[in-house]
Amino acid sequence: MFRYRPEAAEPLTLLSEVLLCGDSPLSRGERELIAAYVSSLNRCRFCFHTHAAFAAVRVPDGMTLVDQTCADPGTAPLSGKLKALLAIAAAVQRGGREVGDEHVRAARAEGATDLEIHDTVLIAAAFCMYNRYVDGLATLATDDPGHYADRARLTSGYVKVWNDEALDEAG
Amino acid sequence: MFRYRPEAAEPLTLLSEVLLCGDSPLSRGERELIAAYVSSLNRCRFCFHTHAAFAAVRVPDGMTLVDQTCADPGTAPLSGKLKALLAIAAAVQRGGREVGDEHVRAARAEGATDLEIHDTVLIAAAFCMYNRYVDGLATLATDDPGHYADRARLTSGYVKVWNDEALDEAG
Repeated sequence: MFRYRPEAAEPLTLLSEVLLCGDSPLSRGERELIAAYVSSLNRCRFCFHTHAAFAAVRVPDGMTLVDQTCADPGTAPLSGKLKALLAIAAAVQRGGREVGDEHVRAARAEGATDLEIHDTVLIAAAFCMYNRYVDGLATLATDDPGHYADRARLTSGYVKVWNDEALDEAG
Repeated sequence: MFRYRPEAAEPLTLLSEVLLCGDSPLSRGERELIAAYVSSLNRCRFCFHTHAAFAAVRVPDGMTLVDQTCADPGTAPLSGKLKALLAIAAAVQRGGREVGDEHVRAARAEGATDLEIHDTVLIAAAFCMYNRYVDGLATLATDDPGHYADRARLTSGYVKVWNDEALDEAG
């Protein structure tokens, strides 16, 4: 898909790099968990499996915690702050106007900063795009988690992953 | 908002530039119309007014056609191809999995190419992100169309618009 429209692939890849791998008060694992959670709400299998795998190697208890979070963040063993941020992400998934003062107040009461709230909103919004792009074009996705696990262990960013895959295919 | 997180603003601005101003088989006006239509479905006033104004100076009959399109693309005086592409955009707005073979078949029957369908899906998906980002952070928006009209007449791309505004603010 990215190779079909390389002009668009560049900003799309750079955005995921900045959001998930760049500087942020949220950890890499927390951000991947938000991405996986929003993708599960949008029932986007490709993005869910990809980011669940990236999260699983970066959070305590791995895929168990990812599955608990996607099943019900309210009862998953997460910090109060992360639960409040995931509630904001779920509101964003329903629609931008679904985010209310009460969501922001609850997150701040749990110690979330404005930057953490901002980054949560933007990650959730971005995955509402990626999920629609992937599923709207009916990208074939496998349900085998093993398919996604190897790449998830890479410590480099997304730009390098895509470039390496392009080189692999070219070479 | 963009100045609050410049690392993210760069790919977000570049993406809108590529999608709306870059090379595409769809005209600038058609792409702005898709952006305005999706923003109206998401009830995002800021993005709707912005892209309605950009569309209005690039399509026949200006804001009249924009309003007719957003009220009901099926009865608006548009080509069969553009109506079919707007139906795809509306499906993407509901969710990526809402895009069915029947939408794609209908667009192809009206002469839409795969690249036109691809660009429609990605523009619609991207505005599901921009709309959520704007409204999720409760950006203040005015309902006065005049506020948006002057900028819409600019023939340069979005990167230049944002840079010029940053320079204006910097003094």
